[in-house]
Amino acid sequence: MHTDLVAALDIGGTKIAGALVDGHGRIQARAQRPTPGGQDGETVLGAVTEVLGELAGSPLWRSASALGIGSAGPVDASAGTVSPVNVPGWRDFPLVERVRSAVGGLPVKLIGDGVAITAAEHWQGAARGYDNALCMVVSTGVGGGLVLDGRLHPGPTGNAGHIGHMSVDLDGDPCPCGARGCVERLASGPNIARRALENGWRPGADSDTSAAAVAGAARAGDPVAMASFERAAQALAAGIAATATLVEIDIAVIGGGVAKAGDVLFTPLRKALTAYATLSFVRHLTVAPAQMGTDAGLVGAAAAVLAGRPDARAVGV
Amino acid sequence: MHTDLVAALDIGGTKIAGALVDGHGRIQARAQRPTPGGQDGETVLGAVTEVLGELAGSPLWRSASALGIGSAGPVDASAGTVSPVNVPGWRDFPLVERVRSAVGGLPVKLIGDGVAITAAEHWQGAARGYDNALCMVVSTGVGGGLVLDGRLHPGPTGNAGHIGHMSVDLDGDPCPCGARGCVERLASGPNIARRALENGWRPGADSDTSAAAVAGAARAGDPVAMASFERAAQALAAGIAATATLVEIDIAVIGGGVAKAGDVLFTPLRKALTAYATLSFVRHLTVAPAQMGTDAGLVGAAAAVLAGRPDARAVGV
Repeated sequence: MHTDLVAALDIGGTKIAGALVDGHGRIQARAQRPTPGGQDGETVLGAVTEVLGELAGSPLWRSASALGIGSAGPVDASAGTVSPVNVPGWRDFPLVERVRSAVGGLPVKLIGDGVAITAAEHWQGAARGYDNALCMVVSTGVGGGLVLDGRLHPGPTGNAGHIGHMSVDLDGDPCPCGARGCVERLASGPNIARRALENGWRPGADSDTSAAAVAGAARAGDPVAMASFERAAQALAAGIAATATLVEIDIAVIGGGVAKAGDVLFTPLRKALTAYATLSFVRHLTVAPAQMGTDAGLVGAAAAVLAGRPDARAVGV
Repeated sequence: MHTDLVAALDIGGTKIAGALVDGHGRIQARAQRPTPGGQDGETVLGAVTEVLGELAGSPLWRSASALGIGSAGPVDASAGTVSPVNVPGWRDFPLVERVRSAVGGLPVKLIGDGVAITAAEHWQGAARGYDNALCMVVSTGVGGGLVLDGRLHPGPTGNAGHIGHMSVDLDGDPCPCGARGCVERLASGPNIARRALENGWRPGADSDTSAAAVAGAARAGDPVAMASFERAAQALAAGIAATATLVEIDIAVIGGGVAKAGDVLFTPLRKALTAYATLSFVRHLTVAPAQMGTDAGLVGAAAAVLAGRPDARAVGV
């Protein structure tokens, strides 16, 4: 594993990041471009090609044996296509085929960004050593991924772990996905802020109405702000408990901007979990904050290709 | 596989069934006792021993190479213990150890009854040929099991697939499990009947207030009876869609007494599924009635041990 080196791409609505990652998960070279999200598909691909071109300028590039891509979803790993919600120019865009030709035929593996984050947390973060784990990102949206029986479970299309769009409130508010009462509709940052404002919370002099501002108010004891986080925690707990009841997991790791609220989120979350995770085989479930930083997507995309190797156990995904 | 023969036990709250099952899933010998559910643990074990003793009287017994047990849950496959809700004399009862000594040291494998049904439907029933499936039993309770990546997914303790206790209504009615708004609380037979009665449905001259009677009334056009099945269908749809969103499944197979309602259940279920299964990778999901009959638990317990063999692909689980 010491000599293994792979290329990784992390494609989001804001930026396209690339890196060369070694077998220890260390980033040896990196490149980045803003995502030209509003533009046509070929322009977006152009930004990807620039990132790869910059990486190819590294003397390490010729050691790279594969390329892992974690992309904003939905993705279709079986078809090699992506349709990121925030990149309208890409709909069923044949990213794997187009990128493979740009990297001289290197093997390319595509997974969703929630799955990539999960691979990173399992390899080197809070889910390390757990054979059954759910890793989540609670931010503008709510995403996630699963480790089952010691291995990443991307599912046939690379989208497994989409906890944000499980309904936990079947008569609840409509979600932009078309369903009702999804975890994301109750627990994402914008929905935490919306609910606080609807219930009478008002921002400070800086007019900051973000979930982070609501978290600050909650920490200062504002009851409406606290209640909005408690409701988000309840929805996350119901979704996490449902996941454990369905596939048996030992830990739920939570990252993303909303998780930065710390105890404002985690204290009511742990309390709510005891109310929903009731069966004998889920009662031991623990919750932990994510440990990987902003490079989680890159490290995870690298882990997903390294895990395909004969000596994959070293990567642990 | 032709010459393979295994023993199987299906332990429920009403009966303890045993069989010798060949590599084609055919039952070659069988035995059965009522479950002495209200009695002490040793008495219940005595009934199991009688079933095994009767099977051991078969000339085929000496060909049996292993014993598979599907038991009412919760079970703990890792510890080899069972705690069936309807058998209070068994709490963390060391069934695997006790039975192993009764069968002369044959290898013994324990799984939950929902997992056993799933193994049977995947081997020879409605989930055959599907690499990712959820199989459910909707009856007095709601149970289930999962096939992921072409293989049975019992989970570390043998309880995975417990869809009946996923909450789909986080503010909903308390469930006996301790949580709220579980699928079972909305969709089980007794709850379908309870809801119909609460909303004004009245049984016919036979005073039958079972879910089957409600199904008959619904078929005859009774709006309250129809509404109770529609609500159950909505809860099942939310749970099935959540499962697909979380782990990616292609088919949900539904058996048990409530599924015998046929179109009264399946028509609103398929409709509700389009409302909850909205993301691109779950929209193709299909729903089908179970195909295996009352022997599903025995055939599935046999499948679970046959699947552990080197030529397991023949069993497909």
